[in-house]
Amino acid sequence: VSQRAAASRPGGRSSRVLTAIYTAVGELVGEGADKISFPLIAERAGVNPTTLYRRWDDVNALLEEVAVAALTRCSESPPDTGSLERDLTEWAEIIARDITRPERTRYLRATVSARVEIVSRCPVMETRREQALEMVQRARERGESTPTVTQILDHIIAPLYHRVAFALEVEPGYPRQLVRDVLAMAR
Amino acid sequence: VSQRAAASRPGGRSSRVLTAIYTAVGELVGEGADKISFPLIAERAGVNPTTLYRRWDDVNALLEEVAVAALTRCSESPPDTGSLERDLTEWAEIIARDITRPERTRYLRATVSARVEIVSRCPVMETRREQALEMVQRARERGESTPTVTQILDHIIAPLYHRVAFALEVEPGYPRQLVRDVLAMAR
Repeated sequence: VSQRAAASRPGGRSSRVLTAIYTAVGELVGEGADKISFPLIAERAGVNPTTLYRRWDDVNALLEEVAVAALTRCSESPPDTGSLERDLTEWAEIIARDITRPERTRYLRATVSARVEIVSRCPVMETRREQALEMVQRARERGESTPTVTQILDHIIAPLYHRVAFALEVEPGYPRQLVRDVLAMAR
Repeated sequence: VSQRAAASRPGGRSSRVLTAIYTAVGELVGEGADKISFPLIAERAGVNPTTLYRRWDDVNALLEEVAVAALTRCSESPPDTGSLERDLTEWAEIIARDITRPERTRYLRATVSARVEIVSRCPVMETRREQALEMVQRARERGESTPTVTQILDHIIAPLYHRVAFALEVEPGYPRQLVRDVLAMAR
């Protein structure tokens, strides 16, 4: 049984434990806790630290899982408006609003601090890649010319995350401008 | 007398003090020191903490100044090869090599951790903007069609910094690909 499956099974003991753990992580990140460790999370969640050591390889794996859960909850399925430009603009605006919320910005910065070695998997980017692929495939079926999925990630997602990580302002028109730029690549 | 001017005046007492301070900051960031403070820097540099409190508003201002000095030392003037594509590719490759060096990556992450409020000035980006402007102006004088300076920052610099901040791999061909993408916007 995966963490996700356990989390969605209603009423189970492991579901309650997982909710407590996720909530504790969310609170600690939200408070800007300096050094988030298994014992600290366990204490806040009221669970035995061994529960954490057994389920996750390290604290970063847990942080990442919580970040992805928070992310996918906000935007399971990408917009479907009938035009790639509108789809991408709505999607980029949702993401910009999401990552500029103070708690999400803290998550994002916590991710940067937590990653000291090159990572081989970045679940947040994988989720974004799947969403981008869905929008691009629909556009191609409609006969629109499209940028590649990689271009969408490099030129919409990366600049948005860059601004938020480095505490630069994300102006309201910024997501739309990035979408215009990336669509110009496809022409 | 600005910090920069004082630093470049050879042999002066303030020049020696400043060199000791910059070196101390570089060492502490390089060692991955968790919490860099004025007293910690002063101790390492062998100077009185009041020297630091007098010269800089806070420790982030000093960190930023050292980061900019390190940056501009590596790449004062952008490449001038006679073609915007070659200029941008060389420039992006220099930046990619620079920011993937472990000490620079740590600086970059330290910047992310240090910035908790939206910043009104980002000296590193301003330096990049000046360099991009110089290359674009030369290309326009040669009659080349060019992307805007903002597009160059959003679609070459931001994705590179995003990768490094989030510990994603920067493949050798990545800077060149970003340059191709941004030039496609100008067509």
